[in-house]
Amino acid sequence: MTRSELYEQIKKKKSFLCIGLDTDLKKIPQHLHSSSDPIFEFNKQIIDATHDLCVAYKPNIAFYESIGSAGWEALEKTADYLKKFKDVFTIADAKRGDIGNTSGMYAQAFFGSMDFDAITVAPYMGEDSVTPFLQYEGKWVILLALTSNKGANDFQTDNELYKTVLKKSQKWGNADNMMYVVGATKAAMLADIRKIVPEHFLLVPGVGAQGGNLQEVAKHGMNKQCGLLANSSRNIIYASDKEDFAQKARENALKIQKEMILLLS
Amino acid sequence: MTRSELYEQIKKKKSFLCIGLDTDLKKIPQHLHSSSDPIFEFNKQIIDATHDLCVAYKPNIAFYESIGSAGWEALEKTADYLKKFKDVFTIADAKRGDIGNTSGMYAQAFFGSMDFDAITVAPYMGEDSVTPFLQYEGKWVILLALTSNKGANDFQTDNELYKTVLKKSQKWGNADNMMYVVGATKAAMLADIRKIVPEHFLLVPGVGAQGGNLQEVAKHGMNKQCGLLANSSRNIIYASDKEDFAQKARENALKIQKEMILLLS
Repeated sequence: MTRSELYEQIKKKKSFLCIGLDTDLKKIPQHLHSSSDPIFEFNKQIIDATHDLCVAYKPNIAFYESIGSAGWEALEKTADYLKKFKDVFTIADAKRGDIGNTSGMYAQAFFGSMDFDAITVAPYMGEDSVTPFLQYEGKWVILLALTSNKGANDFQTDNELYKTVLKKSQKWGNADNMMYVVGATKAAMLADIRKIVPEHFLLVPGVGAQGGNLQEVAKHGMNKQCGLLANSSRNIIYASDKEDFAQKARENALKIQKEMILLLS
Repeated sequence: MTRSELYEQIKKKKSFLCIGLDTDLKKIPQHLHSSSDPIFEFNKQIIDATHDLCVAYKPNIAFYESIGSAGWEALEKTADYLKKFKDVFTIADAKRGDIGNTSGMYAQAFFGSMDFDAITVAPYMGEDSVTPFLQYEGKWVILLALTSNKGANDFQTDNELYKTVLKKSQKWGNADNMMYVVGATKAAMLADIRKIVPEHFLLVPGVGAQGGNLQEVAKHGMNKQCGLLANSSRNIIYASDKEDFAQKARENALKIQKEMILLLS
């Protein structure tokens, strides 16, 4: 999906919501455990119930890997299922990054074997750890800049490393194949970030469970093509642990999307 | 495996060699493709032919993920097979790192579902992205400090970030549950690094294919308990693409191990 196609979806759906599929066997409703693939069944029902309210889905790869090859199969099936919806942007939240030939293998995993639109990448290893992902036409790198967790203060804000990441990485790609992760807990820093990357989309995790404020994020981070994907995971997908989980997920997604209507108007 | 047990193995085998299992379907010998699991069959024969010459194996997770759930199964079987050898240290070269609950899921994948001794972790997201791995008794984090690739100069050497990583992370763990990745291409910087982390083991990739020099690495990086795991991947496992691949791998491993005898004496 191109940047202009993504913006078209945002306008059409009046939403810049990304739903995080942090699907955990321990947290999904009991009745799904009789399914042959509870993880995929959960994801499928969440997607069916919410895809008109969001523009993106973001499976968190750790949750799938934690249960081994069965989890990887559920991830593959989820990626396949998402492809049926031409109107959603798909993000493998994988935080990968390694030397060139190894990053190339990760790119093959998420863009070749599976067909995600984007992958999150950690910048520590620099340019040649990122560019193999950019060699896939039409695919996106979402580079970690300033994350939402406490540990962001250990290195990212030291000597304003996150600004160096934003500046240097702009030479590797452009606003049509790179986005940046900026945590919702850092909303006040978004204005500064926008001075460095005015055009790029920002993926903003932490709306909801991690205490980010959507109004603040929009105020400081929105650009003329919206430029934001605001992610919510647990607040939506675990709205209920009963048989009504998909309906309750829809209700919570709708609450956020209604806020977004106002912010986009 | 504890630090003293690892040092015992180094003394016993007269080796601090780690063999990287960067197993690529495109590079393994043709005759293995008739096997039901060519990746695992390749790894098994490499391990059988070399385990008395090395102290560690390091599957590079990207290579397994690149072929999807079948690759993940081959990885699980490799991890299982390695457990039969009580005298080898096993490293999941995964370069993971995310917010706390997500890093916890990666820890579950590599220490719970599989039973690796160690995992490589990227430091960008700070303390709470690393500590979930350290909560597994007897397991190790191998934190990226100064990598062997060109991109290491983008952020790691800027304001000496890698030194900040070495210094801060020592508060999160200790020499009995943390190691650091320092590229063999940066041998001259090892003396400086040893001033900051005199006791810790260092995992040194890039011996061989990436042009690192073993003598230089030992000269600047060795401590009184050796303190080094020198990794070689392609130079060993792809020594031949014929039926004699395991024997040729052994021959190349033996060449390195013979150098190590001198360096350890």
